[in-house]
Amino acid sequence: MLKIDFTFVKDYVSAKDLLLLEDKVLQAHDFLHATEDSKFLGWLKLPFALTDEIEAKINFVANFVRKADVFVVIGVGGSYLGAKAFIESFDFLKSPKIYFLGTNLDPTYIHKIIAEIKDKDIFVNIVSKSGTTLEPLVSFLLLYDFMRKRYTKEELKERIIVTTGKKGFLRDLALKEGFVLFDIEEDVLGRYSVLSSVGLLPMAVKGIDIKEVLKGARDASLFCRKKSIEENLCYKYAALRNLLYKKGKFVEFFVFYKECLIYFGKWLEQLFAESQGKKFKGILPVTTLFTTDLHSLGQYLQEGKQMFFETVIFIKKSVVNFTIPKVDFDISAFNYLEGKDVDVLNNYAYLSTLYAHSTSLVPNIVLSVEELTPYTLGWLTFFFQKACAISCYLLDVNPFDQPGVEKYKKKMRSYLKQVE
Amino acid sequence: MLKIDFTFVKDYVSAKDLLLLEDKVLQAHDFLHATEDSKFLGWLKLPFALTDEIEAKINFVANFVRKADVFVVIGVGGSYLGAKAFIESFDFLKSPKIYFLGTNLDPTYIHKIIAEIKDKDIFVNIVSKSGTTLEPLVSFLLLYDFMRKRYTKEELKERIIVTTGKKGFLRDLALKEGFVLFDIEEDVLGRYSVLSSVGLLPMAVKGIDIKEVLKGARDASLFCRKKSIEENLCYKYAALRNLLYKKGKFVEFFVFYKECLIYFGKWLEQLFAESQGKKFKGILPVTTLFTTDLHSLGQYLQEGKQMFFETVIFIKKSVVNFTIPKVDFDISAFNYLEGKDVDVLNNYAYLSTLYAHSTSLVPNIVLSVEELTPYTLGWLTFFFQKACAISCYLLDVNPFDQPGVEKYKKKMRSYLKQVE
Repeated sequence: MLKIDFTFVKDYVSAKDLLLLEDKVLQAHDFLHATEDSKFLGWLKLPFALTDEIEAKINFVANFVRKADVFVVIGVGGSYLGAKAFIESFDFLKSPKIYFLGTNLDPTYIHKIIAEIKDKDIFVNIVSKSGTTLEPLVSFLLLYDFMRKRYTKEELKERIIVTTGKKGFLRDLALKEGFVLFDIEEDVLGRYSVLSSVGLLPMAVKGIDIKEVLKGARDASLFCRKKSIEENLCYKYAALRNLLYKKGKFVEFFVFYKECLIYFGKWLEQLFAESQGKKFKGILPVTTLFTTDLHSLGQYLQEGKQMFFETVIFIKKSVVNFTIPKVDFDISAFNYLEGKDVDVLNNYAYLSTLYAHSTSLVPNIVLSVEELTPYTLGWLTFFFQKACAISCYLLDVNPFDQPGVEKYKKKMRSYLKQVE
Repeated sequence: MLKIDFTFVKDYVSAKDLLLLEDKVLQAHDFLHATEDSKFLGWLKLPFALTDEIEAKINFVANFVRKADVFVVIGVGGSYLGAKAFIESFDFLKSPKIYFLGTNLDPTYIHKIIAEIKDKDIFVNIVSKSGTTLEPLVSFLLLYDFMRKRYTKEELKERIIVTTGKKGFLRDLALKEGFVLFDIEEDVLGRYSVLSSVGLLPMAVKGIDIKEVLKGARDASLFCRKKSIEENLCYKYAALRNLLYKKGKFVEFFVFYKECLIYFGKWLEQLFAESQGKKFKGILPVTTLFTTDLHSLGQYLQEGKQMFFETVIFIKKSVVNFTIPKVDFDISAFNYLEGKDVDVLNNYAYLSTLYAHSTSLVPNIVLSVEELTPYTLGWLTFFFQKACAISCYLLDVNPFDQPGVEKYKKKMRSYLKQVE
């Protein structure tokens, strides 16, 4: 279902380089799978973990929510990026309008969203594993203040859905108030949580077939399990990106040609940046949308400082398409566009850019997929999660911690105390 | 009106380094101002260039358009990024709903926008200096196909506004069909065009006071003109960022704490990337929104590969604000938030992050502004344009060309011919 083309990195990484890394890759494989029960490896099991009971609960709640005008997901980082990636990818599906709140502390943004939704028929899903993350709590309290004026205590029990860890204040609150409660298992980490209830409930509200998503992830899990650097393209990708890094390619551009995939890019950014950016090492992930960004970053990519490579995620077919109509302008300069298929033009842009960048100095890795479906996006999700974990081990960093975020949080807590 | 704080780069760049660069900065100044009549320096004059006649035309057209439901700006790169930066910054103003089209060749995106607007009362502004840019032409032809079925030839003359150069097919078309026409002067380059009709007309439709924007730009122009590296903070910023680059800081993160400024960041990205990314040199600009991205890139920024610096553009006050209400939850863990001002929390986040990053290994340059107004955004616009031009001369690259984008465009043209 997926084609991965490594042709355009040949000039930068030799077959020998790759072979030299094989032992380390296989060690990483063994380490990962030997410790599958570890407290951070829930994501390896998630594609297989949806019980009938949880599935029924997700579907029941989602079907109920789908009758509303508005569904608000309140969460930050791993608590919303995966859900948003899927929801934007299938934006054309009919559903309540879905908003994301709790992603920052910008009052102008919060005000704009609340003003838009406060008089609508609302359901809310607050997502926070620890239950203590500041941004979602602030937005939740602000939104709740409007909701409690419009709904009875009984109504709020149905309208507020809490997705949280097995302990913590948010859980206590949900139990006390009788809100709908979904669990985040202890071994499911934020940036690796999209295939748990964290992502699946919002997907189901959007009308995305979550069984297809999980089927894609399961197939990817099998595809990415072979102990071989040559045959397991996931491991090959992990190895190649690490070899490129060692050769001074410090930035990985995730390149898309579909606007709806920008948030899949943002999800990838968190996955890779938070997993790999440790010990003052790691590749910086940056999302780009082509052809849009060719008109802003294009010059840099072609002739700027060559410290980057591109990983193109190309979807061949669009859900909808246009043929450029015959117009009545008497300007022959535009005639060449008449009858052209827009998706074909987009494909030309992809081929032209690949040619221009790869024949310059930019290594390109290309993942191409026939169509964007719940199955293929589920597949890609698992593929990248595993590639990321293996990449981290190749770089000798732990994929599953994030010690560096403590410093600003600690300072923040001291400010909050100060004014108490 | 603006405070620039260079305190947090002291550990990375010495006063001596800076002094050694002074001659080169002053040469760049002389070169820029000696050639003010050159064919690319229209932007230096734009803050002073709005004639009564053009202003009246912009206001007349804008007032007419403001009665409609929808205004569609069709353009890519410099033809929309500046306008979008301003429009998003003042999103709270009442106006027709403003859409941006022609930014890519993704049929799903184009379909989504056209489906949303095709039955509305529409005005269109197609912006392309050359008149040949593929993306806007494609979207224009598709949208025109809907509009011609709903409006008479006479109505289309008022509803289609063309902003283009002094020659070219788009100009020919506008003249032939009698569309409203705005000129782009020969010496105004795409990424330096926001203070021309390219940006001013969409701003006026949004209800932004364009005289205030230009006043800010004029004041910045005076502020940024002094021949001194110590007193001219614009030149100091240009010099510092280039010194940081020489010390291995290859990426500049533009950091915002307001969601509405993301497109100001995107405009900065084009400005800097397209101007500086030449001869295989240049700083890669990347836009980040905090606190959002602290939950995805935060770990990397704190402990990832230290090849970057941050330029924070911090707005002290918000247009709207919230105080966190007292809620009736019996969970004391949330009490500490009660009565807190969200803007104050955002300020704490800014101070905490600045502390955490700058006491780690990340150089920080901080531009702080009291309020986001048309005046201050106009000021920042000019400040960064000039800083960018000087930066380029310090790097020995031409700020005003973009030779690298030809390669993919040439290939694209060959594909287009192939199927003719």
